[in-house]
Amino acid sequence: MSDEVKEVEKRPLSGEACETNITKKPRTETNGKLNDNRCVYLDYNATTPLDVEVLHTISNTLQHAWGNPSSKSKPGIEAAKAVAVARQQVSEMIQAIPNDIVFTSGGTESNNLVLHTALKHFQKTHPESSDMKPHFITSNIEHDAVKLVLEHYKEEYEAEVTYVPVSHNTGAVEVQGVLDAIKSNTCLISIMLANNETGVIQPVQEICERVRSLPQYSSILLHTDAAQAIGKIEVSVRSLPVDYLTIVGHKFYGPRIGALYFRSSKTPEQASAPLYPMFFGGGQERNYRPGTENTGMIAGLGKACYLVTKNLENYAKHMRELRSYFESKLRSVYGERLHINGKFTESERLPNTSNVSIEGMHLKGSDVLRNCQCTQASVGAACHSATKFCVSSILTATGIPEHIAANAMRFSMGRETTMDDIDTVIFDIVKAIKAIDAHS
Amino acid sequence: MSDEVKEVEKRPLSGEACETNITKKPRTETNGKLNDNRCVYLDYNATTPLDVEVLHTISNTLQHAWGNPSSKSKPGIEAAKAVAVARQQVSEMIQAIPNDIVFTSGGTESNNLVLHTALKHFQKTHPESSDMKPHFITSNIEHDAVKLVLEHYKEEYEAEVTYVPVSHNTGAVEVQGVLDAIKSNTCLISIMLANNETGVIQPVQEICERVRSLPQYSSILLHTDAAQAIGKIEVSVRSLPVDYLTIVGHKFYGPRIGALYFRSSKTPEQASAPLYPMFFGGGQERNYRPGTENTGMIAGLGKACYLVTKNLENYAKHMRELRSYFESKLRSVYGERLHINGKFTESERLPNTSNVSIEGMHLKGSDVLRNCQCTQASVGAACHSATKFCVSSILTATGIPEHIAANAMRFSMGRETTMDDIDTVIFDIVKAIKAIDAHS
Repeated sequence: MSDEVKEVEKRPLSGEACETNITKKPRTETNGKLNDNRCVYLDYNATTPLDVEVLHTISNTLQHAWGNPSSKSKPGIEAAKAVAVARQQVSEMIQAIPNDIVFTSGGTESNNLVLHTALKHFQKTHPESSDMKPHFITSNIEHDAVKLVLEHYKEEYEAEVTYVPVSHNTGAVEVQGVLDAIKSNTCLISIMLANNETGVIQPVQEICERVRSLPQYSSILLHTDAAQAIGKIEVSVRSLPVDYLTIVGHKFYGPRIGALYFRSSKTPEQASAPLYPMFFGGGQERNYRPGTENTGMIAGLGKACYLVTKNLENYAKHMRELRSYFESKLRSVYGERLHINGKFTESERLPNTSNVSIEGMHLKGSDVLRNCQCTQASVGAACHSATKFCVSSILTATGIPEHIAANAMRFSMGRETTMDDIDTVIFDIVKAIKAIDAHS
Repeated sequence: MSDEVKEVEKRPLSGEACETNITKKPRTETNGKLNDNRCVYLDYNATTPLDVEVLHTISNTLQHAWGNPSSKSKPGIEAAKAVAVARQQVSEMIQAIPNDIVFTSGGTESNNLVLHTALKHFQKTHPESSDMKPHFITSNIEHDAVKLVLEHYKEEYEAEVTYVPVSHNTGAVEVQGVLDAIKSNTCLISIMLANNETGVIQPVQEICERVRSLPQYSSILLHTDAAQAIGKIEVSVRSLPVDYLTIVGHKFYGPRIGALYFRSSKTPEQASAPLYPMFFGGGQERNYRPGTENTGMIAGLGKACYLVTKNLENYAKHMRELRSYFESKLRSVYGERLHINGKFTESERLPNTSNVSIEGMHLKGSDVLRNCQCTQASVGAACHSATKFCVSSILTATGIPEHIAANAMRFSMGRETTMDDIDTVIFDIVKAIKAIDAHS
């Protein structure tokens, strides 16, 4: 997968054309797409709308398979079927088997469940008398749903944590850096598959292969949070020998629930991956995750996975073209003042993510976006709606100098983003920056 | 609230009439009601269909407020508004304030979160050096989402648990029994508001009032799982001075998520109720329950609560009439052979729940229901889809003799259950029992 700019100057950068575009072609809701009359949403890494097929599946399931899947009533049987179909669809997307899938309430729960499992598993497999605490390895650019769990464990003196820094040359952790961090009490390595802000894809496959090739590390559990990767790049547990993988519906046009892949099958070298529930209750999800199944959302997640299985190549190609067009247009306007954060020769980015800074004294990302008329993008992960200005710690960890990181804006393209949308956004940014320049 | 049979012999028990009814008036889906052509669903304690207004709210929200509520984009702002409206609606239903409400993935999570909180709070407020473990008080008829959590704590040597038995004269715990169980290390009393199988309403209000009247017990936290009560009887935290209350959408025509009430405001006598998160992540729900909000379902839960606030009296009256009609019809056929499990002079039942046994050697509840042509009911909580026959432990705990408990069937009426439905079911049961009798 190449990250190069493929299409340049496809269209002239014309302010007038763009303005006309805005006024003459009001946007309307179509195909679950969204948007009010004037807005272009380029924040698909924060969340996506539901695909229209997913919406229909949810709606149908809520109406027709509303029974309790544990009940033998007719509506219950329908519901159990819907859950089984979805489990199949989720597993197929990542080339797993249905038994490997546990439905959860979302990515936060999936990540917490994995880390909890590693902690408990270590405690169960090590005598209480030994003072040894479990040791976790992660990167310094993880989502808070990994980072803050581990920080909590540290605060509670339950675990040790090594945060392997990403290289400033690649935006990714170095495989050797991860291996060097391994200690005798390492219980889990958790590295995200792609970063949400820069889009940089991490070498999870190589890390897993290297760890798995060393028999002395066979007890180390491997996890990847694939929240941002799914629906944008191929994610298969056949080529990615992890024990756990986090799936988050609303990042790929699915609903606000998630799933956890865990390797339920044994290999000659390895037992199946353990899974220690966080909740106890009515026995659903084989006791790994009790609670009456959210059937409608589960069916919707299945459908969203099915769409990815079927269409990933097209989605990725489309987003890559759009992103290339966007970046080349910006380059043509701002030249060397444009910094593409997270673009490194030696690493790959998600095809839809463009984190850019435009150099300038008064061009903080939040200020530029505030001055935009119709562009909806973000200055970092949506979860951090910080009230005061701050520089993204992900970008500084990636080696972006602070004054560049301060100006960063994250644009993330969707399946139905168009060239017109990009033109509109470019025009909008240019106009916003002109306005800021004029006032400063 | 009286539990007496109010309407008797409103209609003749006519097999022919009923059969005609089945064939001439095929049931169709209306108003989120359900049902295939011949089936009558009387298992509303297991789950309910979505109210049509709830369904519309979910559908609208999924389409129009799909943004990330933490994001400042337009769709994000819409989503945050939808969540705020829902929080208001949920809080109004139980006469709480919006700040008291935390959205969760369901009742299992809400219950687990409360028990986890009590455990952690005890640990935080007692020196590690003291060997004292927290002590929990609960009943012996709780849902598995309370019972199994406490059993897990016991297995892990993290807590002591007292299971206060329900009285065989009332089907409810005795207030004095609960008070007598209090020890110096009691951290939480968790008693369900109404039992899911018998419908017996527990004296939670009196327990809370008694505990709160005794200053030496001010540190004891009070929880009630109101899963089965909401939408059937009035539930208000003004008259029910608990610290925590579990709300489960799908038990009252809402979606498969839940909420937790926790007393966020201080009183002169008491600090606000503590809440220790089980998950860590992106800061949503004021860090009590991080994870991108399931906006559509949350909005649906809000609407379901709004409907309860508005219509509870009518819902309850309707269900009570239907239940009385059902039981009096059964009585007219089976006389003294009919046992109404959970009906006690001195306690009240949920208005919709009828747990009955018909005496007879071969009339096990599961066998009778299997022989029914069109009746969908259950022999216990839907969560326990036991593969082999077993007697409900709830019923035996309630003092129902084993041979009666073995024959138990739980019929639970819904908002749109009709007299015709009841006639159909009575006819069906009578026919099923005749068929069993003929073959035995």
